[in-house]
Amino acid sequence: MENTKNKRSLMSYAPDIKVVDCTLRDGGLVNDFFFTDEFVKDLYQANIKAGVDYMEFGYKASKDMFDVKKFGKWKFCDDKDIRAVVGDNKTDMKIAVMADVGRCDFKRDILPKKDSPVDLVRIATYINTIPAAIEIIEDCTKKGYETTVNIMAISKSNELDIDAALELLCQSSVGTIYLVDSYGSLYPEQVRRLSEKYLEVADKYGKKVGIHAHNNQQLAFANTTEAVIKGVSYLDATVSSLGRGCGNCPSELLLGFLKNPKYNINPILRFIEKHIVPLRESGLKWGYDVPYLLTGILNQHPKSAIQFSKEDRKDYYEFYLELLESC
Amino acid sequence: MENTKNKRSLMSYAPDIKVVDCTLRDGGLVNDFFFTDEFVKDLYQANIKAGVDYMEFGYKASKDMFDVKKFGKWKFCDDKDIRAVVGDNKTDMKIAVMADVGRCDFKRDILPKKDSPVDLVRIATYINTIPAAIEIIEDCTKKGYETTVNIMAISKSNELDIDAALELLCQSSVGTIYLVDSYGSLYPEQVRRLSEKYLEVADKYGKKVGIHAHNNQQLAFANTTEAVIKGVSYLDATVSSLGRGCGNCPSELLLGFLKNPKYNINPILRFIEKHIVPLRESGLKWGYDVPYLLTGILNQHPKSAIQFSKEDRKDYYEFYLELLESC
Repeated sequence: MENTKNKRSLMSYAPDIKVVDCTLRDGGLVNDFFFTDEFVKDLYQANIKAGVDYMEFGYKASKDMFDVKKFGKWKFCDDKDIRAVVGDNKTDMKIAVMADVGRCDFKRDILPKKDSPVDLVRIATYINTIPAAIEIIEDCTKKGYETTVNIMAISKSNELDIDAALELLCQSSVGTIYLVDSYGSLYPEQVRRLSEKYLEVADKYGKKVGIHAHNNQQLAFANTTEAVIKGVSYLDATVSSLGRGCGNCPSELLLGFLKNPKYNINPILRFIEKHIVPLRESGLKWGYDVPYLLTGILNQHPKSAIQFSKEDRKDYYEFYLELLESC
Repeated sequence: MENTKNKRSLMSYAPDIKVVDCTLRDGGLVNDFFFTDEFVKDLYQANIKAGVDYMEFGYKASKDMFDVKKFGKWKFCDDKDIRAVVGDNKTDMKIAVMADVGRCDFKRDILPKKDSPVDLVRIATYINTIPAAIEIIEDCTKKGYETTVNIMAISKSNELDIDAALELLCQSSVGTIYLVDSYGSLYPEQVRRLSEKYLEVADKYGKKVGIHAHNNQQLAFANTTEAVIKGVSYLDATVSSLGRGCGNCPSELLLGFLKNPKYNINPILRFIEKHIVPLRESGLKWGYDVPYLLTGILNQHPKSAIQFSKEDRKDYYEFYLELLESC
């Protein structure tokens, strides 16, 4: 069953591919969204020059639920804050924000597209909140936005539930369904099989499929390229893996791999020099490390590994025993 | 053509798999083989407990060619030094050393197997020195050793030369032929295709195939697991990727992946706590970083990236331009 339906090879020119930069959104989970304005402006310019197709600025989180004093502005992504960076965004790159099911006031906070610099609303849902996700999708579609949906934590879901979720979502107005490896537990073999599953349903309804990978087992890039070969076209990446815990598929690896001549690694290298190197030197911690590997192997949420890392613990064996106890 | 001959799946029990620890040998290229005796003894014990099948102690380098004062003892792997660690090695784990074509006095320095603690001699060759490699293979076979051969830098070789090399080597007495990604430039798709090529010739002659990957593009582990699915059975790994430049497939990732119940990640976690954490803190540099990614993308030897890293440079963009000039 596996490996029978490759749609692309390494040399393929694939104009339908879209690179989605999630550095601010997934990276914001590392620093509570406290990026400097210069970081955000330079990232915007670097992404444009690199040929990135979408840049996600952060979450549309509800200010009733989250204290605006405890987070930087990209947790909330007010249109005026986005405009301060992008103006009218007269570029080929589109602007995205994420709406988390149950954590946003989409009816109030997401204005009609004609009044907003945002192009794409990315809806994040667990498999048991799909109806609520569809409500946001339909609201955003009516307001004029493109939409994508991330079904999170599917490595904990059973296959029949995933099948049912895919059918339901494909019957909505959503444009793209994301295969999400929330815990970084999937191997390339599984990603190929799941890509085929997602694409089979998506193709039937004229939808696209995306992938959002985590790097717990140093597989985020490999899983992304394997999904590409199967025909997945929306590819999430973050500069130098900046993202929760072990982080994501690194933009510089992905841009070095893609053969579409519109992509260019150079602006990202310069951004790394200017912003990522100092960010690491400031003590901010993210990226592959043994504790994330262990939660990945055990298909667990990375929160215990993040805590382990924050406490500067190095007793990996003891940590593994703790994880096994909580399985 | 690709992806048609999977021999294993993720759940397969594969008793023919052999994990080969190369930490001292490839890691020795980072610190000129100056490991403490405690490091080596603890690694030996950890590997035994982890179910590792072979432990490579280092090179059999010629003392006429290399100054013994400039390198630690594992550059030369005298039998007496190995015996000081393993005694008569009354364990299930076998002992390996590497003989580099043109850099060893195999006739003088490799004693008959009956007088040595070594079980396996791994011969490293470039594609243009295959006849010299075969001379070493036949000498070692006659002396009673198992042998494997690494054809290095094949990402720079043409396919017809690789085909010819595989035929020649398979007609020798060598036991295992290694697919080696010296520059960390191969993608999983290419590793699958090359694995099929190597296995097709090897199967015909009753030989095994191994893989030795480098982590320039964070693909060492993924490329190793993909080779496993195709039927490759000798798998090189190093603890925490310790190895030249960006290092190798990390043992802890590989042992977490393999389903054979003989393998156990725990002793490696303890070894990392005790030895790898202090080694990093001592300032020794290895592992994935942007300069290695760039030499990997460009299919170049990592020496310029190693130099860049030693000089603590962070001007990645300038470095990339330098690499492009030397292409």
